[in-house]
Amino acid sequence: MVNFKFNAYTEMLFGKGQISNLPEVLKGYGKNVLLAYGGGSIKRNGIYKTIKELLKDFNIVELDGIEPNPRIETVRRGVELCRENNIDVVLAVGGGSTIDCSKVVAAGVSYEGDTWDLVKEPSKIDKVLPIVTVLTMAATGSEMDQFAVISKMDTNEKLGTSSWNMIPKTSICDPEYLYTLPSIQTAAGTADIMSHVFEEYFSKTTDAFVQDKFAEGLLQTCIKYCPIALKDPENYEARANLMWASSMALNGLCGSGKEGAWSCHPIEHELSAFYDITHGVGLAIVTPRWMRYILSENTLDKFVEYAVNVWHMPIKEDKFALANEAIDATEKFFKDCGIPMTLEELNIDETYFDNMAKAAVSHGGLAYAYVPLNEGDVRKILEMCL
Amino acid sequence: MVNFKFNAYTEMLFGKGQISNLPEVLKGYGKNVLLAYGGGSIKRNGIYKTIKELLKDFNIVELDGIEPNPRIETVRRGVELCRENNIDVVLAVGGGSTIDCSKVVAAGVSYEGDTWDLVKEPSKIDKVLPIVTVLTMAATGSEMDQFAVISKMDTNEKLGTSSWNMIPKTSICDPEYLYTLPSIQTAAGTADIMSHVFEEYFSKTTDAFVQDKFAEGLLQTCIKYCPIALKDPENYEARANLMWASSMALNGLCGSGKEGAWSCHPIEHELSAFYDITHGVGLAIVTPRWMRYILSENTLDKFVEYAVNVWHMPIKEDKFALANEAIDATEKFFKDCGIPMTLEELNIDETYFDNMAKAAVSHGGLAYAYVPLNEGDVRKILEMCL
Repeated sequence: MVNFKFNAYTEMLFGKGQISNLPEVLKGYGKNVLLAYGGGSIKRNGIYKTIKELLKDFNIVELDGIEPNPRIETVRRGVELCRENNIDVVLAVGGGSTIDCSKVVAAGVSYEGDTWDLVKEPSKIDKVLPIVTVLTMAATGSEMDQFAVISKMDTNEKLGTSSWNMIPKTSICDPEYLYTLPSIQTAAGTADIMSHVFEEYFSKTTDAFVQDKFAEGLLQTCIKYCPIALKDPENYEARANLMWASSMALNGLCGSGKEGAWSCHPIEHELSAFYDITHGVGLAIVTPRWMRYILSENTLDKFVEYAVNVWHMPIKEDKFALANEAIDATEKFFKDCGIPMTLEELNIDETYFDNMAKAAVSHGGLAYAYVPLNEGDVRKILEMCL
Repeated sequence: MVNFKFNAYTEMLFGKGQISNLPEVLKGYGKNVLLAYGGGSIKRNGIYKTIKELLKDFNIVELDGIEPNPRIETVRRGVELCRENNIDVVLAVGGGSTIDCSKVVAAGVSYEGDTWDLVKEPSKIDKVLPIVTVLTMAATGSEMDQFAVISKMDTNEKLGTSSWNMIPKTSICDPEYLYTLPSIQTAAGTADIMSHVFEEYFSKTTDAFVQDKFAEGLLQTCIKYCPIALKDPENYEARANLMWASSMALNGLCGSGKEGAWSCHPIEHELSAFYDITHGVGLAIVTPRWMRYILSENTLDKFVEYAVNVWHMPIKEDKFALANEAIDATEKFFKDCGIPMTLEELNIDETYFDNMAKAAVSHGGLAYAYVPLNEGDVRKILEMCL
């Protein structure tokens, strides 16, 4: 286990009706609230109305229309709103995109240069306005972590940034808010949770047993409950376990003490940067192909562990067969959840594969991944996804 | 899953040499440090010397001689020291006893009445001095939780208290500090970790799947690594996983969203209150007997889960046989770790069983446990421990 700092600082208020605590939570920061949200689903499902009623004694300024892959232009708009209205606290209501956007808005207010600098150079992030979230998706884990991913479409850049100062102070997580999610978002969100776990489960560090057991538990949670949530959207048990798994998958529990850069996220970020596809869908497509590509004598034992501990497959003599069965099961799981599992289905061809491969290696540090990947490797993985 | 608040606030600095960060951590709070520690093991193993050298620019006041079951008299002494020396931050160097004592010292400074009030009535805890810990045991989880247990021997009371304000700000966890632990402390500490998990794993709430998977992972960690640490005390992998398991077992990961009071801890607290025995030893003795006592048609399925998921026992038709095998394995595990597994070995007879049973039910809320226990039940469990 390598040395680490773990700091899951966020106060998590989890369960039915926790929204009633929102005024009390915000009160500590001030009266002026930036209410940040996405495309309007919170207006359809009533959360917007509930919040406006609860916060009638606050001054609310709205940042709406945050995109699924949030754009730097929207971040800049949010920063301006904060400055103009002397905002005390940023309230992000939505999924990872809204929360990520809100984090960089909160960081941008005190920064004098262009906010895009904070995405390209995380070390420039200093003072950050307090961030409170109301979660409406189970996916990115942004409600309990220090990361944010922002896109700049004119240059096809989708980059992650990070600062401990951007961790939300409080996140309100009501599983009932997931009841009205479209099926594809439930499925893609689950793929995102699983990918966060995979990125840290498959690591050069082999002695972080606690972390690996947590990872296996979260993967089993997704495998058990995503199909239930798809079939029975108002199943509280399924929604609650998926929602809690989302926060647990990327708050450091699985990755602390483990070395190495991520693999599938950098590749998917390029797909989203060039084609603006749903992040979780891209991850579901890339993941099993990446697994097949990196399966070798060196990685075999980890895949056997994955097969036995996550999929409960009986040990067999032919370890490669067992590993491949686990990879097949992964791919089949995503497919059965209704996720389009080829790039062709998303109308993506190989036009930009070389550009994407180059960018993925340069942005994502793939040379330091579990199995180091160069541009040629990424191109081959993308071809497997066609 | 029932509603919950999760707030694992503590910054965890984990790994070899993390002690070097101590001056930076303390600097934010002030110059006047109360250095709290136990019986002198930190002088023998060099940690005391290292800390004194690192903190040469601070004003150090020492609270030494904290007992394994820390006494209220020691807490009061600490409070006086803080007041006399205008202490800014309490630095606890040791295991759970030292940290628990330090928490109530830190809470007592601003309280005008007798500090024992804060143990009997946790709601009276308000302002708490910042607490920083350097952990030298893997056991109680006090380094990352809001709990403290204090004893008052003249009235045979050993009581737990709790406040979110008592959570340590930072804990420094260097697995190498466990290398010099006596075997019995390694074993008893592991029994304590496992007991924290059991108390929350066996619960009336049956739909907290994520929490149960975390629990099973932590139990597997203890079962795998305690024997290795006993055989090879300087095995870093074993010490690191046990140390991290200690912090993860009681920071809310396993218990959040689950209902019910604890069972074995209230019974053990009375053993310690009457006989001042090692907490983890008492827990190891009580736990398998409690398991046998509560095994019934109602609890059978949970014990089967335990057998299959933690002990990897193959499913068999006779579920009671399987459950009993898991309980046998639990008892054998503690015995193999070198823990005395009968009260007789600790020179405890039934003299105070009725008093202990009465106190356990009244202090511990056993009526609300997984399987509710009355005085008669507790007495029978204690008899099984003889």
